[in-house]
Amino acid sequence: MRRDVSELENKLEIAKLSGLLGIPEHSISGALKRKTLQFVHGKRELFRFDKPVSSVEGGTSVFLEPLEVVRGFPKISRTLMLYPALIKHFSSIKKVVVEEKMNGYNVRVALIKDEIVAITRGGFICPYTTEKANDLIKRDFFRDHPDLVLCGEMVGPDSPYVPKTFYNIESLDFFVFDVREKNTGNPMPVNERRKLMDEYGIKSVHLFGEFDVGEVHTAITGIIKSFGNTLREGVVIKDPEMNIPAVKYTSSLSNCQDLRYAFEFYNDFGRDFFFGRVCREAFQSVEWDEDEESARKRCRKLGESIILPMISTIRKKKAGELIAENVQIRVKNLTTVSEFEEYLRLLGIDAVFETPEKIGDEYLIRIKKIHQSTNDKTQTILGGQMWS
Amino acid sequence: MRRDVSELENKLEIAKLSGLLGIPEHSISGALKRKTLQFVHGKRELFRFDKPVSSVEGGTSVFLEPLEVVRGFPKISRTLMLYPALIKHFSSIKKVVVEEKMNGYNVRVALIKDEIVAITRGGFICPYTTEKANDLIKRDFFRDHPDLVLCGEMVGPDSPYVPKTFYNIESLDFFVFDVREKNTGNPMPVNERRKLMDEYGIKSVHLFGEFDVGEVHTAITGIIKSFGNTLREGVVIKDPEMNIPAVKYTSSLSNCQDLRYAFEFYNDFGRDFFFGRVCREAFQSVEWDEDEESARKRCRKLGESIILPMISTIRKKKAGELIAENVQIRVKNLTTVSEFEEYLRLLGIDAVFETPEKIGDEYLIRIKKIHQSTNDKTQTILGGQMWS
Repeated sequence: MRRDVSELENKLEIAKLSGLLGIPEHSISGALKRKTLQFVHGKRELFRFDKPVSSVEGGTSVFLEPLEVVRGFPKISRTLMLYPALIKHFSSIKKVVVEEKMNGYNVRVALIKDEIVAITRGGFICPYTTEKANDLIKRDFFRDHPDLVLCGEMVGPDSPYVPKTFYNIESLDFFVFDVREKNTGNPMPVNERRKLMDEYGIKSVHLFGEFDVGEVHTAITGIIKSFGNTLREGVVIKDPEMNIPAVKYTSSLSNCQDLRYAFEFYNDFGRDFFFGRVCREAFQSVEWDEDEESARKRCRKLGESIILPMISTIRKKKAGELIAENVQIRVKNLTTVSEFEEYLRLLGIDAVFETPEKIGDEYLIRIKKIHQSTNDKTQTILGGQMWS
Repeated sequence: MRRDVSELENKLEIAKLSGLLGIPEHSISGALKRKTLQFVHGKRELFRFDKPVSSVEGGTSVFLEPLEVVRGFPKISRTLMLYPALIKHFSSIKKVVVEEKMNGYNVRVALIKDEIVAITRGGFICPYTTEKANDLIKRDFFRDHPDLVLCGEMVGPDSPYVPKTFYNIESLDFFVFDVREKNTGNPMPVNERRKLMDEYGIKSVHLFGEFDVGEVHTAITGIIKSFGNTLREGVVIKDPEMNIPAVKYTSSLSNCQDLRYAFEFYNDFGRDFFFGRVCREAFQSVEWDEDEESARKRCRKLGESIILPMISTIRKKKAGELIAENVQIRVKNLTTVSEFEEYLRLLGIDAVFETPEKIGDEYLIRIKKIHQSTNDKTQTILGGQMWS
């Protein structure tokens, strides 16, 4: 659906938006022209920033009548070497807080025109996640705090974006790791935020504690090692006052789990996933001063995470199977299913929805996401095509 | 050194070159303008094609007075699955020849204006390889066949381009795998070529034999497995008449050896080297129908080839060492050293030459090639910089 830039500009109240975002009007018109600021048609019309524009984060959503902004969730830097990076990054403070980084998908929940909506990392409203958020978050929180945005992780087996889960969650659950103001995006200090969530019975991600900046690397090493084989993802290290940006660090098992996923669909994701993750492994091994046996064990796990899923994919294709990622959703309203189907089409995701299965008062829908590039590449090589 | 396009055009005798290459004059002028066809200043002036231009291979060199062309060595396609690929590729013939693919660097040797010169894959004259070629190849061959180009692999410990060697060679040796005509690039049939080399006492790469197209995949599997731990690289499968392009296939050990090299200098080479090689591993495992134990062994070796060299690089940098690749050359004339130094500068390679060491009637020169990107990245991460 195409629209004139001038028509979009009229819709947007650019002067007012310029004030809300703190960037000049011409930056907004320019972003509209370049389609970095895109109009998203849907049940609830909005604009989204596809990429960052000066100080405005990518994934920022702009709602209309009244004009309101939910800022994109800020990118969190990653450290490969805990000690030097944390000492340097948090040099102006004494203590930091360590919270869990969970393996789900990042969602911002906000009250827009008296309705609770769930916004994905990209700045779209996800109709499925919105149904779930309405179930999980009681309205009293937003009645009292309509100006706040809950930023958290959606985790559980009924996730259409994350294929596997390792937490003891029945369907999908929401864990808050940030509360921010609408429009400004200003964050709330960690303890205040956790207390506020407790008051309203909203779950927060796990808190490992507060540590001295000079010692937190040892604590994190202990935390990561204590994860053992549980596939918990990692940690986020935060300034308690939230004045300094947070930093993330992940476990080797989680790196390998990502690689296993990426190399099952190697021609779709393999290249992008690979390089950063092997660097994490190598630097972690050096920082932890591993002996040869531990390093070799790490190598074996890395190699297995890459090659075994590829072998399995090639064998499947050889046997005539379709290479697809199996996910599922669970809804109360079947209209959510068709809205979600439409939404995936909008995102360009190729997905096959199976017939809804009634379970209690809900419907379970299995979805096959087709990764076409891996299907095609594997098929042509099995058919005798050269690599290049 | 900049030159006018029109000045270069005058130098080139474009009409005549157009005839020799079989491409229109405007393609040649266009390539000159875009600098795809570049003038190379040096002891012996030449033009080289930086990339393919219609039917002309990248790395093609054009010599002046008289105008002569040494065609770039054609890119050889790689198969990941022997059986389906070979059956399809060689469907119009019954028998194929299998020769060894050695681990060295590709060189074309030709007689230009009464001098033997050695041309690298990129179409440059390498002064070092030229000295070696003049030692290794007796002039009687070119006296009798001034119109032929010897294409072969330079292999041995005194190689400035390949850091390690696994053949029982004292300094550097040359193994011919193709003989082609100047100007046209037409290849000689395999048996005729091998016989001709024998007559002049020039070495050829190892011949594994001639096989039926329908059975050669089994033979190659046996050959590759027989390499064991010797690090021989792989094979090239050829039409005996050389009418159909050749196809290459490499061993897992050679893939892993490449990865070990690439990940020692991970930020310079890791990304480019990685993806194709893991795909080779996975498809080979499926084609060979490996059991779980063999597949896991393959995974372990892959993982170790990636992570162990990175760990070693990070540790070296942590200890304050420079990350560099150690190679060496051995020359009779010290002028070759300064010419080679200049040549590496022209290629943009950062190299430190140590003082020549006299050994017999020759000089050994150790060279450190500095891979700056890996040095810088490792240093900044050790210094506490975030990954991104």
